[in-house]
Amino acid sequence: MPTELYPSALEELIEELGRLPGIGRKTAARLAFYILNSDQNEALALAEAIIQLKKKIQFCSICFNISEQEICGICRDLERNRKQICVIEDPGSLIMIEKTNEYQGLYHVLGGVISPLDGIGAENLHINELIGRIKNVEEVILALNPSTEGEATSIYLSKILKPFEVKITRLARGIPLGSHLEFVDELTLSKALKSRLEL
Amino acid sequence: MPTELYPSALEELIEELGRLPGIGRKTAARLAFYILNSDQNEALALAEAIIQLKKKIQFCSICFNISEQEICGICRDLERNRKQICVIEDPGSLIMIEKTNEYQGLYHVLGGVISPLDGIGAENLHINELIGRIKNVEEVILALNPSTEGEATSIYLSKILKPFEVKITRLARGIPLGSHLEFVDELTLSKALKSRLEL
Repeated sequence: MPTELYPSALEELIEELGRLPGIGRKTAARLAFYILNSDQNEALALAEAIIQLKKKIQFCSICFNISEQEICGICRDLERNRKQICVIEDPGSLIMIEKTNEYQGLYHVLGGVISPLDGIGAENLHINELIGRIKNVEEVILALNPSTEGEATSIYLSKILKPFEVKITRLARGIPLGSHLEFVDELTLSKALKSRLEL
Repeated sequence: MPTELYPSALEELIEELGRLPGIGRKTAARLAFYILNSDQNEALALAEAIIQLKKKIQFCSICFNISEQEICGICRDLERNRKQICVIEDPGSLIMIEKTNEYQGLYHVLGGVISPLDGIGAENLHINELIGRIKNVEEVILALNPSTEGEATSIYLSKILKPFEVKITRLARGIPLGSHLEFVDELTLSKALKSRLEL
C-alpha cells in the first residue's frame, strides 16, 4: 500500500497501550482512538497521572508498601500494633486486608513469591528485611496467595523464621462465604473439613 | 480508617484510566499497578505517546481523516482516483476499507452519523464540506455502518446529493463470507435474497 494507514503518532500509542496486561492490539486501537477524540485536557491529565505516579510513588523503606514518602502511612501510624507483622505478596493484598477493618498490625510486602519457573528465588524477595524486623515482634501472619508458589513460600518462610521464636500463623483455609458447596473445589472442601470448628 | 489506602498519585491514575471506554475501576487498578511496577522508561514512553498523539495528530482539512500534516496522505496521493469519494463515519472505517486493497479513490470522514438521541444532527457532521468537494466527482460511495442511524444518514445524504447529478452507491448488503446461514439474521438474509446475482 503506498500510503501508511495509521499516522506514526497513533501507531506509537497503540503499541504502548498494547504492552499493558490484558490489552490486545484491537483494544489498544480502540483506546487510542478514544484518546485521540477526547478533550485535550482529559488526555493530558492521563499522561500527567502516569508521569506523577512514577515520580512520586516509592516503596516504603521498612515494609516495601507503596508510599509517597520514604516511610508509608501504616509504618508511621503509632496507633497500629507493632507486635504483629502480616506478610503479603504485593501492595494489592494489603489493600484487601485493610478493607476488612480486622487487622491493626503492620505489614511486610515480599514483592512476590518463590517461583523457580519465573526465575524468582528467595534472594529476589524482601526476606532478609523481614528477618531484620522480627525482633520484638510477637506474631508473623503469613497471608500469601493460596497458589502452589504461595504455599511453598509460606512453608519456606515458616522454616526460616522458626529459630526466632516468633508465633507464625497463616490465614485459615475454608469455604468462602456466600458460596455453595457444589462450587467449592475438593481440596478446599477437604481443608475446611479438617479444620472444622465446634459451634 | 486512619491511613488512606492508595497514595494519591496512584488513586489519580486509577481514576484517569477508569475514564477510558470499557475500563472499569478494577481493571484500572490492575493497569495502574502494572505501570507502577514497570520500568521507568516504559511508563514514560506511554505518557509521551499520549502527549505526542494530541500534539501531532490533526484532521485532514479536506477529508477529515486523521493526519500528521494539514492534508492527509491519501488526499495528497496523486495516484488515487479523484473521481470517487467514499463517505465513512470515522477514520477506523477508512483503515478497514484500505486493508481490502480494493479501493483507490478518496475518502470523506463524516465524523459520525445523524443520531437525534445523542444530540447529533446533520449540522454536526462534515456534510457541507462533502458537498463542497463533489464538483468533478463521478461517484460517491456511502460506506456508513449498517446501523439504524447509519442507514438513516445514508438516505439523508442520498437526498441531499441528488441535485448534484453524481452517481451515488452504497456497500452491498448480504451474507458475510465464512459464516453459516443459520447465524445470519433474517433481515440480512432477506436483503441478500433480494439482491441475488445471476451466476
